Amino acid sequence: MVATVATAAYLAIGNELLVGRTQEKNLQVLTKFLNPRGIRLVEARLISDRSREIRSAARTLSRRADVLFTSGGIGPTHDDITTAAVAAEFGCPLEISEEHFERMSKYYKERGESMTAPRLKMVRLPRGAEPIANPLTIAPGFRIDNVYVLAGVPQVFEAMLQTLALKIAGGSARLSETLYTILHESRFAEALQGIQERHPESEIGSYPRMQGERWKNAIVVSDTDALRLGAVVKDLRAMLKSLKS
Amino acid sequence: MVATVATAAYLAIGNELLVGRTQEKNLQVLTKFLNPRGIRLVEARLISDRSREIRSAARTLSRRADVLFTSGGIGPTHDDITTAAVAAEFGCPLEISEEHFERMSKYYKERGESMTAPRLKMVRLPRGAEPIANPLTIAPGFRIDNVYVLAGVPQVFEAMLQTLALKIAGGSARLSETLYTILHESRFAEALQGIQERHPESEIGSYPRMQGERWKNAIVVSDTDALRLGAVVKDLRAMLKSLKS
Repeated sequence: MVATVATAAYLAIGNELLVGRTQEKNLQVLTKFLNPRGIRLVEARLISDRSREIRSAARTLSRRADVLFTSGGIGPTHDDITTAAVAAEFGCPLEISEEHFERMSKYYKERGESMTAPRLKMVRLPRGAEPIANPLTIAPGFRIDNVYVLAGVPQVFEAMLQTLALKIAGGSARLSETLYTILHESRFAEALQGIQERHPESEIGSYPRMQGERWKNAIVVSDTDALRLGAVVKDLRAMLKSLKS
Repeated sequence: MVATVATAAYLAIGNELLVGRTQEKNLQVLTKFLNPRGIRLVEARLISDRSREIRSAARTLSRRADVLFTSGGIGPTHDDITTAAVAAEFGCPLEISEEHFERMSKYYKERGESMTAPRLKMVRLPRGAEPIANPLTIAPGFRIDNVYVLAGVPQVFEAMLQTLALKIAGGSARLSETLYTILHESRFAEALQGIQERHPESEIGSYPRMQGERWKNAIVVSDTDALRLGAVVKDLRAMLKSLKS
């Protein structure tokens, strides 16, 4: 079944993200998945490994967008509580996934080891959830309702997303073009606003950066329609030319 | 006046962050400010430049933590709407800050330019707000109630935070220690949980990473008390030693 969606939200779960120990990297991976599909990310949240917070954020964000992707907290240790929290929020008991139990038992049996409680934890999914396999680990992510619960380790997060590649469709991808200028934003802000008002369907943003002591501005325009985009770029070029002269 | 706080929240505002054009970098800067002060970051959110979303998130997060820091959307262009949105949410009209108006007028006068509407926008603050100056730009951030509204450009965000260095105090800083192991998490998860249960005041997290084909785990323990931290580290070392033998 292919889900056709317009908007997505993202929830990154883990204390390590909020103390600055680990830099959140999955957001960039997710946008690379969403953008070409024309799916708009409406919000991203980073929260800690607390059940109440996970439940509340999962519920809120699953309502705020067509789909919600989460990352983190589905491993075997005591601080991995995402699966249990999401299951509780959606009122589903946890059940062993027979298919993944078999695969994991076999893996460990071949190594002379057995299925311990932490390993069982990784193959326990909310009842009714659809497992999300991946080529890197036996432990699956899962989808329940419109919530996709993925691993936090970036390589595994990305591998799980790829598993979903044919299952999630969007709309028209946004095209974008960027013009750079060293003019201060305050020099072109009024003209830029005029252009935005003449092209309300395009989205125009101005993003200053400091490089050493110098400012450099990126003016970014995006639109799903190439003709409209071209018209805005033409106006932007004319604006920058007139300001420089 | 020094604000003494235990918890903080962070709100990053800007479409560029959600389309993956710009990687959010101020969260790391903020944690470097908060951690040594013993202030706990409870949540971070990334949202787009929409007034309704800014107002709602600013209100929610300002209640969720003792202080809220925002970044982005205080420049002169049409997509910079943070100041107006926060002012509206807190019921404060916007007013010219005389002090910053004077400084900016002087700056532009010396360059043969005048105060245009976009420049005026940058010195307009909510009534009652406390300006947050910085050494890099004349345009200030501001504090209103428990919300600190800072610039999005990382250098300016950091400079504004430094301006606040003596104005925000916290509690005891958390100390932390990290042990590394190539053991799979599922090998030590049960023993680790036992250690967490014996030391409920310490916070123990397990963070796996993939390096090429190999897994490497960081076990991180943090506590405000050095003696307690030491006791946990001793238990962790003993656990890892017994598992390797």
